[in-house]
Amino acid sequence: MYPQEKRIQDYIFEKLKKVAALFGFEAYDGPLLEQIDLYLGKTSEELIKRQTFQITDKKEKTLVMRPEMTPSLARMIAQREQQLIFPLRLFNLGLRYRYEAPQKGREREFYQADFDILESESVLADVEILNVVIAIFLQFGADEKDFVVYINSRTFIQKQLYSFGIEENKIKKVIEVIDKKEKVGNADLRSLLIQCELNENQCKKIIVFLNTPIDQNTSYFKKLFDILHMYNISKYIKINPSIVRGLDYYTGLVFEVKEKGGMTRSLMGGGRYDNLIADFGASRKISGVGFATSDVILWEFLKDKNLIPELKTKLTKVLVAVFPQEKNGKDNVVGDADLRPLQKSIAIVNFLRHNNIPSELYPETDKKLDKQLKYADKNKIPFVIIIGHEEIKNNVVKIKNMKTREQTTVKHDELTFYFKNENC
Amino acid sequence: MYPQEKRIQDYIFEKLKKVAALFGFEAYDGPLLEQIDLYLGKTSEELIKRQTFQITDKKEKTLVMRPEMTPSLARMIAQREQQLIFPLRLFNLGLRYRYEAPQKGREREFYQADFDILESESVLADVEILNVVIAIFLQFGADEKDFVVYINSRTFIQKQLYSFGIEENKIKKVIEVIDKKEKVGNADLRSLLIQCELNENQCKKIIVFLNTPIDQNTSYFKKLFDILHMYNISKYIKINPSIVRGLDYYTGLVFEVKEKGGMTRSLMGGGRYDNLIADFGASRKISGVGFATSDVILWEFLKDKNLIPELKTKLTKVLVAVFPQEKNGKDNVVGDADLRPLQKSIAIVNFLRHNNIPSELYPETDKKLDKQLKYADKNKIPFVIIIGHEEIKNNVVKIKNMKTREQTTVKHDELTFYFKNENC
Repeated sequence: MYPQEKRIQDYIFEKLKKVAALFGFEAYDGPLLEQIDLYLGKTSEELIKRQTFQITDKKEKTLVMRPEMTPSLARMIAQREQQLIFPLRLFNLGLRYRYEAPQKGREREFYQADFDILESESVLADVEILNVVIAIFLQFGADEKDFVVYINSRTFIQKQLYSFGIEENKIKKVIEVIDKKEKVGNADLRSLLIQCELNENQCKKIIVFLNTPIDQNTSYFKKLFDILHMYNISKYIKINPSIVRGLDYYTGLVFEVKEKGGMTRSLMGGGRYDNLIADFGASRKISGVGFATSDVILWEFLKDKNLIPELKTKLTKVLVAVFPQEKNGKDNVVGDADLRPLQKSIAIVNFLRHNNIPSELYPETDKKLDKQLKYADKNKIPFVIIIGHEEIKNNVVKIKNMKTREQTTVKHDELTFYFKNENC
Repeated sequence: MYPQEKRIQDYIFEKLKKVAALFGFEAYDGPLLEQIDLYLGKTSEELIKRQTFQITDKKEKTLVMRPEMTPSLARMIAQREQQLIFPLRLFNLGLRYRYEAPQKGREREFYQADFDILESESVLADVEILNVVIAIFLQFGADEKDFVVYINSRTFIQKQLYSFGIEENKIKKVIEVIDKKEKVGNADLRSLLIQCELNENQCKKIIVFLNTPIDQNTSYFKKLFDILHMYNISKYIKINPSIVRGLDYYTGLVFEVKEKGGMTRSLMGGGRYDNLIADFGASRKISGVGFATSDVILWEFLKDKNLIPELKTKLTKVLVAVFPQEKNGKDNVVGDADLRPLQKSIAIVNFLRHNNIPSELYPETDKKLDKQLKYADKNKIPFVIIIGHEEIKNNVVKIKNMKTREQTTVKHDELTFYFKNENC
């Protein structure tokens, strides 16, 4: 990741951090290497067994490079349930690893941002999480023509499945199948459902249900939309019965954000997980609701929507040129030449830095001024300060504006004033 | 890493990034997992073989969790030698892994910051790197009583070893032994040197040399100190013949930063590596000089010197309280109650956020005001906005200053003005 790309990634990180701060989320982190026991029986088995990077350490323990953050978070919450202040808002931005074939919007190594609210079962917490989702897109300059948040409720879907006569022990399997609906289509969906030992009638009912719009007036959705309206964000959100999320731990709200007219992969995904933290040994039920998104998928989205602004990789405002000396032997060092111009250049760059003006001294003593100016041009450094014997004598510096190519002579004590007022 | 600790880590990151920007360094990154071939024969064999986390992937390739950044950097430079603009200043802040026993200032997982200048063989580049080192300490509020930068030159030390009659093929081994001097002391040093097949006389000469101050007027050091004086930073820097650095790739300047009156472990380390990038396949010699430091060691240093300021983990300025409702059934949701106070609270929190004032709505509808105020207190949120039926009627909000405990009534359209002028 060379500076141009890193700058875009940092831009994405800055926006995510800005939203986290604006909404009162506190940053935390956990180890990248976790013991495999953290995940087993808690999250998707497929994810852990087949899609993780694993290391066997010197004590023969299996370590996993974390594929997601929620299990680490749940353990951390359970461990400090007494000291933490609830309701708690947490934010993590860190590396995750998945051992899958790379494709558009998906890499093996990526950063994920996780936002979570712990210990509030209220619909207000559900809406707050959706608020954060939407704020991120708005921060990037996207709007409702660019994305849609599809929501559903695990409670709601489970009730439906019970009403079709599907037994408790088949529910988990059926939800995993529904999660694949988008990839496989209705025909294959039916055969996958039959593998869950459902009868023809149950399969048919599920497929009809998944293809029928849901009434917004169902109890949970009614309350949710009442609050969404108050925040004026209901226009971004649609109920979608096929959104169920693959992970085992979700209990209530589940959602995914999709790009409009673009990638089919989800841009963000999350939901409510009210039992997970107790599963990690908390002495009481500590509810949770949250979501995650990745730098890779947001980057693809921003590219698709042409929302990546022009970004500077180098922030240097002033290049202080070095009065060129003849080469003095093979070592290109200062030697016996007149050191006064160099001394003055160094004093100036020191002075600028002490005044918080990003500056560089050209780091070679034998390069012609032309070459130094070219360096400033290529790096888009807006000003070059030039100091020769004339300038030393008069106690001034010459400033070249690289855009207008104009040169100004400025006194030493007017320098910071000059750069603080110049538009660059 | 809970929010309190994460906040300190972020503080360290912010300072490092600030110095990088001020000195014109551009951020880059590389993959955390690298193929083992990247390191073999290029850096310390001990480091790679015994102190790394390794993974065998599905194609039976050995991957290493990067223990340092320089080899990745060198490969990246070699791959784009035509497109990059030299002299190039690069900065990376990222995870590194070392499989060693954790101890004070050293963890298996840590962040390292790397600063490098590519393609300048000038002593100006050496000094610029030392400039950055010192700027970091000054940014943290440390000064010359807290740290010292010990420097040496590999060229200088090699010349010395040759002058003792030590053969070329033993030099590498001898330098590795000298690097251990601090850990083992003079007596063990002698026996390690004898294992390098040196004679008694050579061992004696080395030990005398290592314990004798070096003349600053030696050619390279003279030039270096001339420039250090111009930057007014020579007071932070001392020549030390025992500083040689363990890694194979260094060629000229080498240095380590030590805490004064504290830990013996180095706070930073680096040097010049003029042949490394050609070793990675560049078509020409591309010189380099740089250093690395870690979050863990800086943290210990700041703790030792009492330089960690008070830092807020939550930036929320305003908590908007929710007018408490009776519980309406087990679900704690809004129900049929009068929604006007909630509606107004939501309108206010929305408004504040649109004006970039970090704000939260208390995320439960059934908690008494007392409990909500306690939440603000514990989280050090400076203001709470309270809205009841009275406030709705008069189109105002009540603002409680949590420090003075005073309450003010403010009109809706004076809100942003109020928070932009309040000191909090």
